[in-house]
Amino acid sequence: MSRDDDVVLVISNAPDLLLAKRIAHVLVEEGLAACVNLGAPVLSIYGWQGEVQGDAEIPMWIKTTAGRRGALMEALARLHPYEVPEILVLPVLDGAAPYLDWVRAQTRGNEP
Amino acid sequence: MSRDDDVVLVISNAPDLLLAKRIAHVLVEEGLAACVNLGAPVLSIYGWQGEVQGDAEIPMWIKTTAGRRGALMEALARLHPYEVPEILVLPVLDGAAPYLDWVRAQTRGNEP
Amino acid sequence: MSRDDDVVLVISNAPDLLLAKRIAHVLVEEGLAACVNLGAPVLSIYGWQGEVQGDAEIPMWIKTTAGRRGALMEALARLHPYEVPEILVLPVLDGAAPYLDWVRAQTRGNEP
Repeated sequence: MSRDDDVVLVISNAPDLLLAKRIAHVLVEEGLAACVNLGAPVLSIYGWQGEVQGDAEIPMWIKTTAGRRGALMEALARLHPYEVPEILVLPVLDGAAPYLDWVRAQTRGNEP
Repeated sequence: MSRDDDVVLVISNAPDLLLAKRIAHVLVEEGLAACVNLGAPVLSIYGWQGEVQGDAEIPMWIKTTAGRRGALMEALARLHPYEVPEILVLPVLDGAAPYLDWVRAQTRGNEP
Repeated sequence: MSRDDDVVLVISNAPDLLLAKRIAHVLVEEGLAACVNLGAPVLSIYGWQGEVQGDAEIPMWIKTTAGRRGALMEALARLHPYEVPEILVLPVLDGAAPYLDWVRAQTRGNEP
């Protein structure tokens, strides 16, 4: 299996559910993600210009392949209103073979 | 530490909380998982037969070892109503030593 | 990029939101974490002294670097009421470069 075919988990956050849905729709429609889970709101606590801030955000767990992650991150950054959106790619060690194959098929660039 | 002893994080989703609880109970009772976190409902957006679909699901974060992941994935697939359930295994790089040891002890095959 | 500069995702759970907020504040203020997401309550199912137990917990997703993970785990264990708190460190394969750089800058030891 070439590295490009490895399934990966991309995590990010959107400022609200409406935008999270839009991002998820575009990523799936464009064959960049097989599936996006939009979680219940989280409270994000972070440092910004010397102050500890807290914002409500919608977590997004995005399943794609290593080979598609570059195009996915580009689309996510383009669709995201933040200047510096959180986008992290986590490696997947193993999984249910039919599911891994489904993710690969869904992100091979053809329609969903 | 043999690779089998590495702790891993398995993520999956169940169609509803009742089933998620049942799956979690069986995995812990059978010593296949040390702990299962059942999250608040997520909205899963994915492509299916040319359409973008959206379903509510319960996320499951399952802590076990690399050595038990095969038996766990088999049990999870057996208990799960979907034909192709999402089951992904993420590597764990490090962690609090007492917790890692507890996960190993809980999944060595003896009762919880 | 030295391994210490690799961004990692640390996951843990707190017994309630108030404590989760306090832990998150301290980790960010002390430059041990760039950002902490506090999720909606999860139901944690686990085995304890022969019984399957269930507790409500607040999930915490903590973004930091590999180099800071030791000090972060120490602080988290010190602040946490459990004798054996769940603390797992997941590797990050890739991500949006500006975000990765922001995490590194935030955890270089200076104020948030």
